[in-house]
Amino acid sequence: MYNEIPKNSAIVQKYGGTSLGTTDRIKKIAKRIADQHKDGFSKIAVVVSARSGVTNEIVARIKEINPNASGVAYDMALAAGEQETVGLLAAALEAEGVMAAPFLAFQAGIYTDMLHTKARIQQIDTSKIEAVWAENKIVVLPGFQGINKNFEITTLGRGGSDTSAVAIAVALKAAFCEINTDVNGVYTSDPRIVENTKLIERMDFETALEMASLGSKVLHPRCVELGANYNMPIIVRNSFEPNDSKRTRILNMKDSDSIENLIVTGVTLDRDVAKITISGFQKGMKAIPKIFKKMSELDINVDIIVHDRQSGEELKLGFTTSTGVIDQVKKGIEALREEGLSTLEIEIETDLAKVSAVGVGMQSYSGVAGRAFSALIDQGIDIHMISTSEIKISCVVSAKSAQAAAQALHSEFIK
Amino acid sequence: MYNEIPKNSAIVQKYGGTSLGTTDRIKKIAKRIADQHKDGFSKIAVVVSARSGVTNEIVARIKEINPNASGVAYDMALAAGEQETVGLLAAALEAEGVMAAPFLAFQAGIYTDMLHTKARIQQIDTSKIEAVWAENKIVVLPGFQGINKNFEITTLGRGGSDTSAVAIAVALKAAFCEINTDVNGVYTSDPRIVENTKLIERMDFETALEMASLGSKVLHPRCVELGANYNMPIIVRNSFEPNDSKRTRILNMKDSDSIENLIVTGVTLDRDVAKITISGFQKGMKAIPKIFKKMSELDINVDIIVHDRQSGEELKLGFTTSTGVIDQVKKGIEALREEGLSTLEIEIETDLAKVSAVGVGMQSYSGVAGRAFSALIDQGIDIHMISTSEIKISCVVSAKSAQAAAQALHSEFIK
Repeated sequence: MYNEIPKNSAIVQKYGGTSLGTTDRIKKIAKRIADQHKDGFSKIAVVVSARSGVTNEIVARIKEINPNASGVAYDMALAAGEQETVGLLAAALEAEGVMAAPFLAFQAGIYTDMLHTKARIQQIDTSKIEAVWAENKIVVLPGFQGINKNFEITTLGRGGSDTSAVAIAVALKAAFCEINTDVNGVYTSDPRIVENTKLIERMDFETALEMASLGSKVLHPRCVELGANYNMPIIVRNSFEPNDSKRTRILNMKDSDSIENLIVTGVTLDRDVAKITISGFQKGMKAIPKIFKKMSELDINVDIIVHDRQSGEELKLGFTTSTGVIDQVKKGIEALREEGLSTLEIEIETDLAKVSAVGVGMQSYSGVAGRAFSALIDQGIDIHMISTSEIKISCVVSAKSAQAAAQALHSEFIK
Repeated sequence: MYNEIPKNSAIVQKYGGTSLGTTDRIKKIAKRIADQHKDGFSKIAVVVSARSGVTNEIVARIKEINPNASGVAYDMALAAGEQETVGLLAAALEAEGVMAAPFLAFQAGIYTDMLHTKARIQQIDTSKIEAVWAENKIVVLPGFQGINKNFEITTLGRGGSDTSAVAIAVALKAAFCEINTDVNGVYTSDPRIVENTKLIERMDFETALEMASLGSKVLHPRCVELGANYNMPIIVRNSFEPNDSKRTRILNMKDSDSIENLIVTGVTLDRDVAKITISGFQKGMKAIPKIFKKMSELDINVDIIVHDRQSGEELKLGFTTSTGVIDQVKKGIEALREEGLSTLEIEIETDLAKVSAVGVGMQSYSGVAGRAFSALIDQGIDIHMISTSEIKISCVVSAKSAQAAAQALHSEFIK
């Protein structure tokens, strides 16, 4: 990638928690960055996560102390993790003979909205970063955090560090945003689960977004979405892999000169699936929008919705969500019962998984859905729910057949 | 203490790292503070250290990464420790039903000079703290750190959190500054070493300063000095001791109505003693100020100086310092040799300790020095060096007789 861009291009590199987990790793990362700087890349911004485990440890402590802590207190405690790594990586860069400017959000001017624990970046004051570049320094920034207009520390929630990196890359008009992690890139499926997976060399934002949303853990959907909205190329690579060809580029394929005509780019597996079935609709379908309104008020992410009314049969509404919100869903239905929909009944199934085939190629090939279902059924896998879009097919299957289902789809489409 | 002051008095409470070492301890501390707030004390500022061990762990990591890290990077990494505890304690206060305002230095306006890793507090913007008090909130602040005029994070070095607390108390015109720690207060000597020690209920700043300087680990001299300069009473107490009478008050005894006429207030023991003897003064005494100038340039703390020239004998200069700076001392003498004092020789003794008796009473009683020396000699203890001031007598003895020496002085003076 670096030989394709002018040396005065702005570059953003993000390093995750496992990449910063030991002092040796921090030193290795610093060496790579310093070498690039010495090679002439004068505008490097590095975004860091907390050392692996640290944020979870702080969350555990704060939950023990006060499960209902205010966002101000919670975010302040949490943000300490990246503060340490910003300082450590800056020190490591200095040891490599380059100058570093370690900045926290209040110093770099990374401003978010007021929403604690899941803030969104609103504005980045690039003048401060550009000023330190002019002094020939590498800027080191904390991922996952910002500052709101009350000068309080905010954190961005899940996927926060990757999202920070892409937002910073957009603000700095970077050539690309490099996400350095503990795998070589995005694979056609999870190599720990499925055989014969391959590294995806290029993919467009749409496919990446679907794969991220459908359970590929490499990137968070928020970060891909931001990249798509601002057309900021995202490069996923291994922090410690010197071979530049082992990585995944996510970019706007219309801008690309080598669209690969794969039908299916990848197969994802999401094991965190709960199926909710609601019945008892005495007053007809009018209750359905009320149910989704209530779920939205309770911040519950509804995934696949199946509504297929057979005449003569009782009306039932099925949807999936993550297992962690089951209690919230129950509360929501209980509230609706008290608000007049007293006959609603709820049934919950867990031990499920969702397997999906994703790819822009699916739009132009017919019969993909048929091939997908055959592949599963041929393996004796029972399909509980189906959901399709232009670029993905998802099937909910039992948890025990999840691995076989993913393998079946992968073997069918990815040769 | 609390029944002696109006409820609208400003109060500063500092809690050390062991007091914040577990979530249970943080909860207990929060309960105490919340109870006081509910009892009507509306102006409480709490200053916290990092959880015990955390700062040392970060220092170890940064030293592994870059022993010559810049102060900006070093201080940023280090300051993460208190950031976490500020957030955690604020969350714990909320769980107790009171409102908390967690502030970092940049938010509270704690400004220091530019000296990284050993900054000094210059100014505190009390308006921000007073504004949150007006909202009926308890303010939680990080000890040990501040912000300089470049908006960089600075740390205060050894004793930093206690010093922060006293500086904040002075700025807020607090009734007193409470230092909550893991012992009940300052004892007449270290109870782990000397028998029959007693808690000192009251002591003046001068005595406290000498005791702190002479090796009593409870308070750092910087914090006592600041208290003395601004006449800010310091109360040392155990974080988890409900009995209000078990504590040490350090205050200006001229303001106090119950001066206790103890001759000796306490006996301290410092095991970190190196004796440096320099000889080879071919050019006479002119070299002596050069030696001390060099030590000062190298930031070496010279403690006891013995210079007693017998006519006819060779000139020798002896002084003590801490064992950690021996290499630095050697470097300094080496530099002087290269700068023309080529004949200087250096001899180093370790395995020493310094035992001291401290107390303002000594000023008005004669014969204290004689009693002290007798007490040691009667136990067969060899005195290597002696240093006296108006309120202390220090003797350097061998490390192996340190405990016996401390016990001998304690038994002699404290009944």
